[in-house]
Amino acid sequence: MQIDNLTIENVLPADIERRSFEIITKELAEKGLAVDPRYEHIVKRCIHTSADFEYAESLYFSEGVEAAIGQALRDGCYIITDTKMAQSGINKTRLEKYGTEVLCYISDPEVAEAAKARGLTRSYISMEKALQLGKPVIFAVGNAPTALLSIIRLHEETGFTPVAVIGVPVGFVNVEASKELLIASGLPCIVNRGRKGGSNIAACIVNAIQYRL
Amino acid sequence: MQIDNLTIENVLPADIERRSFEIITKELAEKGLAVDPRYEHIVKRCIHTSADFEYAESLYFSEGVEAAIGQALRDGCYIITDTKMAQSGINKTRLEKYGTEVLCYISDPEVAEAAKARGLTRSYISMEKALQLGKPVIFAVGNAPTALLSIIRLHEETGFTPVAVIGVPVGFVNVEASKELLIASGLPCIVNRGRKGGSNIAACIVNAIQYRL
Repeated sequence: MQIDNLTIENVLPADIERRSFEIITKELAEKGLAVDPRYEHIVKRCIHTSADFEYAESLYFSEGVEAAIGQALRDGCYIITDTKMAQSGINKTRLEKYGTEVLCYISDPEVAEAAKARGLTRSYISMEKALQLGKPVIFAVGNAPTALLSIIRLHEETGFTPVAVIGVPVGFVNVEASKELLIASGLPCIVNRGRKGGSNIAACIVNAIQYRL
Repeated sequence: MQIDNLTIENVLPADIERRSFEIITKELAEKGLAVDPRYEHIVKRCIHTSADFEYAESLYFSEGVEAAIGQALRDGCYIITDTKMAQSGINKTRLEKYGTEVLCYISDPEVAEAAKARGLTRSYISMEKALQLGKPVIFAVGNAPTALLSIIRLHEETGFTPVAVIGVPVGFVNVEASKELLIASGLPCIVNRGRKGGSNIAACIVNAIQYRL
């Protein structure tokens, strides 16, 4: 254990990140974990964000989803997150240049009112707003299994199809099942199978893709 | 794998959370992991946030730190985070009633300017602002090892002592060492030893403590 280049006077974040990815690459090899080269940048950034090598084995990518997300980000789309944390974690600097915006409706008072009035969850109302936006939508879900169910339901009932769903809620109740339902739905998606994920992972997947554009 | 109480029409978040904690308690016992009852609410919420049982073994608490944080939150203090994500993840509803505010300076343009002008990191400038606030400060660090070093340096140079430092950066370079330096500094702290942590964990520790008040 040592401190390298770590002072309050001088720090090179890009250098720290480069060295971190070198360590991740080396340890993946040592652990005998092979990563699909098409998704390597995403898998490694999830490990970088979590220090958890399980992501090398649990991430699922539907065919072509990474390219579709990249194209939509570049063409100007909306990203809808289920938490303010995921919204905060997505780097906006580059996305704004492309005309891509990151939205989160979960705390809007009118969402709470509509949920109460219609007897539906706030997650459902938040995701339903995608139908009115008039631009392609990417959902980034790091917290609520009900958000994934809502997206599947909206697709079944209205035919609305997002560019992709990043489905990485974390937790112990309904989380795994909601992710498997998302995969089974046939919607374009990136999913972290199992219990793990989180708002930080949802944001990190968007960032991994945009940093390659 | 089953879906329980998971519909878009009806969801009881409090019930889901209660069941999640029951599962965590059961699995901790099955794994033979004993948790100090004084910190059980914090350890279990970290596992709840990450779905990672390693937190049962890696969290460090300096003597009396949890009570000191609880008292400060209730008396009205400032929480300074090193990322917008950690700031977003802290539940503000109850804290606002106590007069406790959550601040994050990292993206302020004047912080970037001062860092450049003085040849110091943005983390240092962000943490240094604590000296001017005139109220007790809790630092919640989920990302930057340099933020922890800055807090230690400020303490050594000015004598400034925060109520506590929640030191849970995540990563591969300098992360473990910065956490060990924090523990060795003698500052009141909660630390997740090793590589793991994150902005979500920093926020979750603050929330675990405030939900007990």
